[in-house]
Amino acid sequence: MPDTQIDTNLNTTDHSAAIAKLQVEFGKQLSVNLNVREQHGHTMTWLANQPPDAVLIAHDKHDVAKAVAICNEYQMPVIAFGIGSSLEGQLNAPYGGLCIDMHELDAILQVNNEDLTVTVQPGVTREQLNHYLRDTGLFFPIDPGANASIGGMVATRASGTNAVRYGTMKDVVLALEVVTATGEMVRTGTRAKKSAAGYDLTRLMIGSEGTLGIVTEITLKLFGISECIGSGLCHFPTIEDACQAVMLTIQMCLPIARIELLDALQVKACNQYANLDLLETPTLFVEFHGTEASVREQAQTFNDIIEEFSGTDFVWDTNEAERKRLWQARHNAYHASSALRPEAKALSTDACVPISRLAECVSATAKDIEASGMIGPIVGHVGDGNFHVLLLVDTDNPEEIATADGIIERLAMRAIEMDGTCTGEHGIGQGKQKFMDQEHGNAIPMMQAIKLALDPQNILNPGKIWPQPLVIKTQKAEA
Amino acid sequence: MPDTQIDTNLNTTDHSAAIAKLQVEFGKQLSVNLNVREQHGHTMTWLANQPPDAVLIAHDKHDVAKAVAICNEYQMPVIAFGIGSSLEGQLNAPYGGLCIDMHELDAILQVNNEDLTVTVQPGVTREQLNHYLRDTGLFFPIDPGANASIGGMVATRASGTNAVRYGTMKDVVLALEVVTATGEMVRTGTRAKKSAAGYDLTRLMIGSEGTLGIVTEITLKLFGISECIGSGLCHFPTIEDACQAVMLTIQMCLPIARIELLDALQVKACNQYANLDLLETPTLFVEFHGTEASVREQAQTFNDIIEEFSGTDFVWDTNEAERKRLWQARHNAYHASSALRPEAKALSTDACVPISRLAECVSATAKDIEASGMIGPIVGHVGDGNFHVLLLVDTDNPEEIATADGIIERLAMRAIEMDGTCTGEHGIGQGKQKFMDQEHGNAIPMMQAIKLALDPQNILNPGKIWPQPLVIKTQKAEA
Repeated sequence: MPDTQIDTNLNTTDHSAAIAKLQVEFGKQLSVNLNVREQHGHTMTWLANQPPDAVLIAHDKHDVAKAVAICNEYQMPVIAFGIGSSLEGQLNAPYGGLCIDMHELDAILQVNNEDLTVTVQPGVTREQLNHYLRDTGLFFPIDPGANASIGGMVATRASGTNAVRYGTMKDVVLALEVVTATGEMVRTGTRAKKSAAGYDLTRLMIGSEGTLGIVTEITLKLFGISECIGSGLCHFPTIEDACQAVMLTIQMCLPIARIELLDALQVKACNQYANLDLLETPTLFVEFHGTEASVREQAQTFNDIIEEFSGTDFVWDTNEAERKRLWQARHNAYHASSALRPEAKALSTDACVPISRLAECVSATAKDIEASGMIGPIVGHVGDGNFHVLLLVDTDNPEEIATADGIIERLAMRAIEMDGTCTGEHGIGQGKQKFMDQEHGNAIPMMQAIKLALDPQNILNPGKIWPQPLVIKTQKAEA
Repeated sequence: MPDTQIDTNLNTTDHSAAIAKLQVEFGKQLSVNLNVREQHGHTMTWLANQPPDAVLIAHDKHDVAKAVAICNEYQMPVIAFGIGSSLEGQLNAPYGGLCIDMHELDAILQVNNEDLTVTVQPGVTREQLNHYLRDTGLFFPIDPGANASIGGMVATRASGTNAVRYGTMKDVVLALEVVTATGEMVRTGTRAKKSAAGYDLTRLMIGSEGTLGIVTEITLKLFGISECIGSGLCHFPTIEDACQAVMLTIQMCLPIARIELLDALQVKACNQYANLDLLETPTLFVEFHGTEASVREQAQTFNDIIEEFSGTDFVWDTNEAERKRLWQARHNAYHASSALRPEAKALSTDACVPISRLAECVSATAKDIEASGMIGPIVGHVGDGNFHVLLLVDTDNPEEIATADGIIERLAMRAIEMDGTCTGEHGIGQGKQKFMDQEHGNAIPMMQAIKLALDPQNILNPGKIWPQPLVIKTQKAEA
């Protein structure tokens, strides 16, 4: 979905020599068609589309290595593209350059059932992987909502609804193969479940948004599908009550697999979108994994907890069809919200706080949205203290953008103030650079020193996480 | 325990000007006494003791920052010391320099019961922390055996008996405060359970063995103590049977909290040491955490599993005193083994493989030890594919050292060959540098580039993980 506005202001370098060389090397795999370029520079925000100079459809990892080597030779930016579901402008090309589309790298290379591991190419999507695994009794739990590519999920340190039980991408990746800035292929680990041998390059790459290397293979942990899965929902009079129930659930160490909050407006949107008749109050969607006895026990404990906070109508079921129907409603949240104001764009922002501050942070955010007059349902992976606001913005209206921007900024600052983070799972990209100083302070020069060490020419997704790093400018000035 | 052999061969630089400055700054906190220095350069291997030039007893984190800044000014090596339980020469000072003893930084700064987090100084030990938490219902699960300092456990990416359920240090550290090579204090994260904001400096520091920074504060995740804990043991006719039972336990995703293997020799050693009467066959020690019903269910499932592999005499108990007695036997393994040959030194090596290769790796290692004629009980955190060999070596006998070295080398290579690692939890230090190439290949220059970026003068624990990096030598040559 290309944006209407195209911004090529920063892309002032002439990359034609590099493009010519890539054309000789890759022929029809390379496209300079404007539509194709715009599709690969799209964003889900009000950031203008900044298309790359060319798009390469990689056939295999050797194409990736070869292309990056050429980009290195010509000092041309290079950006990897999975399926384009990132939310903070991670795929924009402010300085032009080459976009490498990884969708053909979609092979599941090796499943090791006995070890509960799988090795995949970066273009594999999470739904594709779970479909492939369907007869093994195993599954890949990370579920950010969108059917994202595994490579993209590595790049943004994705998480989602199951993270409260199974962790985030930082927890489930065992090892990576990465193409470095010079086009070399490097493995960052083994299939051992743990290691104390050398620096943790795997975790350094995860969440680096393509600025330190391009991932070409990923070895993941898998998990056994529980013998019994119970899903349900319950309602609360206020959002504070719902958050308090979540806090107690976590504090009691109930091994809940999913605990998702939808505020009243989001429930209303889901009702309208999917023709449901859920009570339009703050609602928790939950899921329990375990043996039959353990699921029953967890559900009973959860019921006891919610009763302390005026939670009502808790019904749960182990029926698979019922569970799928329930979670479909949750997964439709984005589209359901969008339908509340079809002419507007739904912009998703996220923040994450220590669980003790969740009720306070969500409530203050809800009040802020209300005071602004904007439509902005709240929905979140609250078991991790992580939640989203979906702001419905007319992006042609600068006043609305300013209002939305204010809400996002105040939410980010509120979360950081509470010893939390401006983004629990969407990443920094272009959209959240202005909060990096507040959150990381003097850790930023450390991060930039690492960037400079691994990508001295700043060709790997430049202009993301921070503006072009000053250290790099300084070095060039000296050269 | 100072070694008899002192090696100062590599320490050829005159650090007297830096020491003089430190003496002015720190007075009696600084010691140049040879005994004190040797105590701080001790190793648990046959590596010679390489004492630092001086030892500073830091009173607070500002002392650490100030001392590192002086070391930076004079290009003098600096090594942090917790309680000295590292196993691969991590605390040796091959190039001399300053050792900063952190034992007075032993404050537990902030417990956040509601968030299940705690912030501690690096000199806090794991037993001290759990003693402090005893009335909160919470605990810190990482248990490497020794009563290690939390700072040291960060440095070596420690794990231990509970890791199969609760993860390793990489999984339980939320954020760090680190003194950089220039003496600056940097925070690497927040108390949010997850974040997608910028590079994961926390995970980069964990396991870097003091070569990238010195940790001055650590924020950890805590866990609720289960309502019910069941512990037990069972016996197997062969080590392969025991390993096969472990593999199936993991593959069935039983949420076991501990599953530890002792081979027949280790059981014999424990019997002799603690006057027990355990059956002297390969034995699994296990522990289950959960509700009473869930523990019973787990134990039943485990019983079904071991019966498939001729496991016998499985008895388990939820009685706390009985459990403590049982685990004391496991925790005594090191001392019990040492007592098998009191005049020798017990050298602990470790490796970690994918669980599917565990039986094969352990069996081949057992055969190798047997063929060598050495005494070397096997014990391990086998749920993670991680195990140890305790070799009883007369370190005055070069032939024995060579034999032991051969066993360790073949074990490391065997593990790497099986897509595992030469060390699951002890780290590289000085002892395992020779396996880095085999395990990491061309990822090493990446690691070294990061080292160079964050510590351009190579003052932070130089000569660990790899010999003095060549890149640094090259740079100096160019300067």
